[in-house]
Amino acid sequence: MTNPIKLGIAGLGTVGIGVVKIIQQKAETLQARAGRNIEIVAVSAKSKNKDRGIDLSMYDWESDPVTLANRKDIDIFVELIGGHVGAAKNSIFAAIDNEKHIVTANKALLAHHGQQLAEKTEDKNKLLRFEAAVAGGIPVIKALTEGLAGNSLARVVGVMNGTCNYILTRMQSSGLSYDEIFKEAEALGYLEADPNLDVGGIDAGHKLALLASIGFGTKVNFEAVQLEGIGQISIDDINHAADMGFRIKLLGVAQLNGDGLEQRMSPCLVPAASPLGQLEGGTNMVMLEGDHVGQIILSGPGAGEGPTASAVMADVIDIARGVRIPTFGQQANTLRTVQSVKSNTRAPYYLRLSLSDKPGALAKVASLLGDFGISIDRMRQYAHADENAPVLIVTHTTDPQSIEKALANVPKTGVVHDKPVALRIEPL
Amino acid sequence: MTNPIKLGIAGLGTVGIGVVKIIQQKAETLQARAGRNIEIVAVSAKSKNKDRGIDLSMYDWESDPVTLANRKDIDIFVELIGGHVGAAKNSIFAAIDNEKHIVTANKALLAHHGQQLAEKTEDKNKLLRFEAAVAGGIPVIKALTEGLAGNSLARVVGVMNGTCNYILTRMQSSGLSYDEIFKEAEALGYLEADPNLDVGGIDAGHKLALLASIGFGTKVNFEAVQLEGIGQISIDDINHAADMGFRIKLLGVAQLNGDGLEQRMSPCLVPAASPLGQLEGGTNMVMLEGDHVGQIILSGPGAGEGPTASAVMADVIDIARGVRIPTFGQQANTLRTVQSVKSNTRAPYYLRLSLSDKPGALAKVASLLGDFGISIDRMRQYAHADENAPVLIVTHTTDPQSIEKALANVPKTGVVHDKPVALRIEPL
Repeated sequence: MTNPIKLGIAGLGTVGIGVVKIIQQKAETLQARAGRNIEIVAVSAKSKNKDRGIDLSMYDWESDPVTLANRKDIDIFVELIGGHVGAAKNSIFAAIDNEKHIVTANKALLAHHGQQLAEKTEDKNKLLRFEAAVAGGIPVIKALTEGLAGNSLARVVGVMNGTCNYILTRMQSSGLSYDEIFKEAEALGYLEADPNLDVGGIDAGHKLALLASIGFGTKVNFEAVQLEGIGQISIDDINHAADMGFRIKLLGVAQLNGDGLEQRMSPCLVPAASPLGQLEGGTNMVMLEGDHVGQIILSGPGAGEGPTASAVMADVIDIARGVRIPTFGQQANTLRTVQSVKSNTRAPYYLRLSLSDKPGALAKVASLLGDFGISIDRMRQYAHADENAPVLIVTHTTDPQSIEKALANVPKTGVVHDKPVALRIEPL
Repeated sequence: MTNPIKLGIAGLGTVGIGVVKIIQQKAETLQARAGRNIEIVAVSAKSKNKDRGIDLSMYDWESDPVTLANRKDIDIFVELIGGHVGAAKNSIFAAIDNEKHIVTANKALLAHHGQQLAEKTEDKNKLLRFEAAVAGGIPVIKALTEGLAGNSLARVVGVMNGTCNYILTRMQSSGLSYDEIFKEAEALGYLEADPNLDVGGIDAGHKLALLASIGFGTKVNFEAVQLEGIGQISIDDINHAADMGFRIKLLGVAQLNGDGLEQRMSPCLVPAASPLGQLEGGTNMVMLEGDHVGQIILSGPGAGEGPTASAVMADVIDIARGVRIPTFGQQANTLRTVQSVKSNTRAPYYLRLSLSDKPGALAKVASLLGDFGISIDRMRQYAHADENAPVLIVTHTTDPQSIEKALANVPKTGVVHDKPVALRIEPL
């Protein structure tokens, strides 16, 4: 296996250029590690003449990524265009038809078409790898698929969208509102063109669906992820949570319960002193809980040229070395279809209510919670300027359905203004 | 590749039994992931009749692990005996001669004979894997060898001996002395038969030497690790360090500097709020710094039946899947021999001195440090009952040689009692 392995790279944005740089700068190291040369044959991007800061003249140029995918002289099609429709999708399908290995950073495409893509690739006896699609530079796909292959997974928990974590931690450190920090993040270029992909939890939801598939041996089912973004998180909640020893994180959790597979991506409270609570800025963190290994935590940069290119190269080097592991850790046609269920895993909850400042108001709320079997761990009433008293409640462990029912009945008490805020406190 | 892969397991202690349990309990899952059945053919241990809590009657019994290694009907020899001499060594060499793949948890053997073992295995076109040898259940060998294969490593930092971290964190939480907590750890069975393997830093030093080899593409050189154990750490130092916002950890650091490879395993201060500072009890943590990926942190259980067996199984499954990666990430005969050098990487230092309570004493010490180009960041003098004042100094960043020279000249000041304590504050 001393012949070079030949790459076609589609997409020359930050990540694509990062990959080209590594291959140009580290030829000798890569050769030693892969046991053969890694060569770029051709590249493709929208604009040929854009200055990308590196010399691309030695590579063939294809204006159409599908043409690149069809080339006879490439072994691996590296898709770094992004998006689950259009050029990325068309070129990956073409590359599979042409019996190429695929390396991609495209979480959206895999979340939507992962099962089909994996089956088609495996039919051709080729590889489809996507380390860069989840948690940037952290080798979490490898850790889960290979490092923990001797385990049954109990739960996967992760902070996997750096922009959301940046916004939440910046709100806390600055005391500024969501809207102000959102604008700051936008100005810094941290947000996707469609910011809802970030702050709506969609991007992180894609990643969670991929981890869940590997972890539980189930078909990717992004549609079943319970998605809730961070747009409703107020600076008050961040401050109140901090007062009570918690941090708010956009947390992805996947686990099997008795009824089926739970996948949720939502703002949750975690203990401030826990590794997840300590996570600052754009760093990602994934916690993998296996039945034999216990709890493994991985953290690192979740995005950016170097980290994402590093992950792409890990896949390229694996393929060059001859590693042959199915996309989701077992043959795609053996992945199970499991029922997707709404979370019924018990947890304590944080509740914030705006209460009429009248005698007996608090008793009415406590009584309502009691009616649904929810008991109160801690409660705090804040000083207030107007007639509405902000009240925080941390409940004992309860089931999500009880919280939902209690909240639906809150208006009946006649003492609660505005919509109550309820955030799960994820047990870690 | 649908024929089963056949294992011979030598050593039925905690880890060996953990491996047998996983294979017995998870046959179907393992088959799905590995693409073939994983079968135990024969086992070997000292005592055949000992009750190990599981049924071993379906496996052939070999009283001599070398005989097991010589069996024609095994593909992988799983060595879980331990130690770098005797049965472990003899049986692994026999297994290689008999063209078996090797999976081992034996850090000592690899630290001493890794180069020779890897070369011999690769000559036979077989695999030698050792995920379980470093940091228990954390898939750090895989992360470094494969996940970060596109990077040049800048530095590897780790807490890789759970017993030492247990002792240090228990001293802090209990306020008890090293000797008292050492006895506690002994009673709990946390210490090796030769406790110096743990508290002398030898076990962790073995692991560091293995990570350094992969990270820097160099031949394993355990003899060159600068080893310093935790036996000299007093409860005073733990408390004083905590007062100043630090924790004391037995920290392994490997990095290339201009002159060669630095490998040191020694008690260091780290910021209390850093991930390493927060690490409690027997948990291990490794920080990998790559030129493209940045800083990746992995943590998890560093020992125990489940975690270590999980790591062994990752290697077994990799081999069953057909993964063919050289032991140290590149062919052993291409690993470089680099000069091993004493640390000359600059850092701040923590110094504790017992000073005569006389006017001008502190000035003499400050002056001495100044003579060696060491400037003082912070200083604290503690209340004292006798005539000796405990004085703490945190220096600005300086080079280790200057600290060494200054300490050698301390007696000349005539105002310092006892031997000063100097601990490096590792920049993170």
